[in-house]
Amino acid sequence: MQIDGETKIVVIVGDPVAQAKSPELFNALFERYGVNAALVPLQVPPAKLGAVLDGLRGIVNLAGVVVIVPHKIAAAAYAADLSDAARQTGSVNCLRREMDGTWFGAMFDGIGFVKGLDACELIVRDKSVLLVGTGGAGAGVAHALVDAGVASLDLFDSNTESLQRLERALRSRGGTTLIRRSMPAAQAAHDFIVNATPCGMRANDPLPIDLTGAHPDAVVADLIMKPAQTRLLEDARARGLATHLGRYLLESSVETMAAFLRLVP
Amino acid sequence: MQIDGETKIVVIVGDPVAQAKSPELFNALFERYGVNAALVPLQVPPAKLGAVLDGLRGIVNLAGVVVIVPHKIAAAAYAADLSDAARQTGSVNCLRREMDGTWFGAMFDGIGFVKGLDACELIVRDKSVLLVGTGGAGAGVAHALVDAGVASLDLFDSNTESLQRLERALRSRGGTTLIRRSMPAAQAAHDFIVNATPCGMRANDPLPIDLTGAHPDAVVADLIMKPAQTRLLEDARARGLATHLGRYLLESSVETMAAFLRLVP
Repeated sequence: MQIDGETKIVVIVGDPVAQAKSPELFNALFERYGVNAALVPLQVPPAKLGAVLDGLRGIVNLAGVVVIVPHKIAAAAYAADLSDAARQTGSVNCLRREMDGTWFGAMFDGIGFVKGLDACELIVRDKSVLLVGTGGAGAGVAHALVDAGVASLDLFDSNTESLQRLERALRSRGGTTLIRRSMPAAQAAHDFIVNATPCGMRANDPLPIDLTGAHPDAVVADLIMKPAQTRLLEDARARGLATHLGRYLLESSVETMAAFLRLVP
Repeated sequence: MQIDGETKIVVIVGDPVAQAKSPELFNALFERYGVNAALVPLQVPPAKLGAVLDGLRGIVNLAGVVVIVPHKIAAAAYAADLSDAARQTGSVNCLRREMDGTWFGAMFDGIGFVKGLDACELIVRDKSVLLVGTGGAGAGVAHALVDAGVASLDLFDSNTESLQRLERALRSRGGTTLIRRSMPAAQAAHDFIVNATPCGMRANDPLPIDLTGAHPDAVVADLIMKPAQTRLLEDARARGLATHLGRYLLESSVETMAAFLRLVP
């Protein structure tokens, strides 16, 4: 890749940001398309997010911002307009800089997760899913699973407020998916078991889900990207269960996000 | 070059910025040193400079900002502290982000210009120089020429205020260099004839200096980098005079600036 004065810029904001895989994935995509654009990482503490986003709005050749932990909910408040998924989840993972210098916020985590499963020929329609974690990432995944027609969605979060908010939002959509409250423990009925909590990013984190009761054909997915093999996924493999890595979510949404930012067709 | 989550970021702010050569030069330097850093261009309109610099201050992995036209004077006001050359010229071409999130401003244009001449074995000590243009770039070059021991410095600017400010600043330094006011016309006594105005960036710009009276051994230098061959340099070549390109200034100061930003030894 070659950066020159005419390069369009995308940034990723997170804290930390060192673990982010978006720079490699987006820059490889730009190279593949022959697009003169580059994505660079910016480590932004929560207290500085507002000032940083206000500043970035003033940059003419900035296409947009990829938003990761812990900014997904806070960043939504800076968007002048939001996509349906961003509105449903109250969070964004991408801000596009519009011509007038305002942000349009979107959330591709959920659709990226479902696309990532699709790419591995794992179909969620009519299946039963346990989802642990109902923050920004979990909410995005929950709405996308409902969009994809899962039969039932069992939810857990130790943060009751977050859990209730997501339950209400999912139920207000109507549709046929059963929305239930659950324990963070797999049951034989679950086809998919999904960790959407940050628990597992550090080596000493406890297991976010008890897999003891899981069906032998269940698929265990973790949204965490680094480490690639979380303790939960290791536990699943030790039990002979199929696993699905966090990076598939991002890999499946990078092209969608670059198109949203109007950098690739 | 490969950008990942741990890459340190430097930005260049200008308006326009498409013509900037810093991205290629800095990124090649980082590659040569095996440093995980990248410089990216940001097009920032003057009205947005304050907000952009305030935002950039909040980015932990931002090493600093390279500042080009038209922001060199305005950006100095955002620095908590200034180098001698920045103070003398009232302008900065580089802001380093300190640990506490403040900016330290420095100006390397002048020393870069003299270093660029040195690299071409063009020695200014005890020589007579005509300098046209006394804005940020011109002032930086003027102070560096005095530092380098020129015998006389003839100054012109159509902006009398800018001209008087520079005359006062140079005279207040004491020393032996003759500081004189001049017309924008070469005389036989001038060893070096320097354009530090933006006149020549556009194809239809008038000539900033009349070379009719130039000595056949005079060297004509232009600080403009794009186009490489300005109308002034073409006129000089047509008259058989030696020429010195604008890009030598930048090429000679890139390593100094990267060291100032603490990215190379």
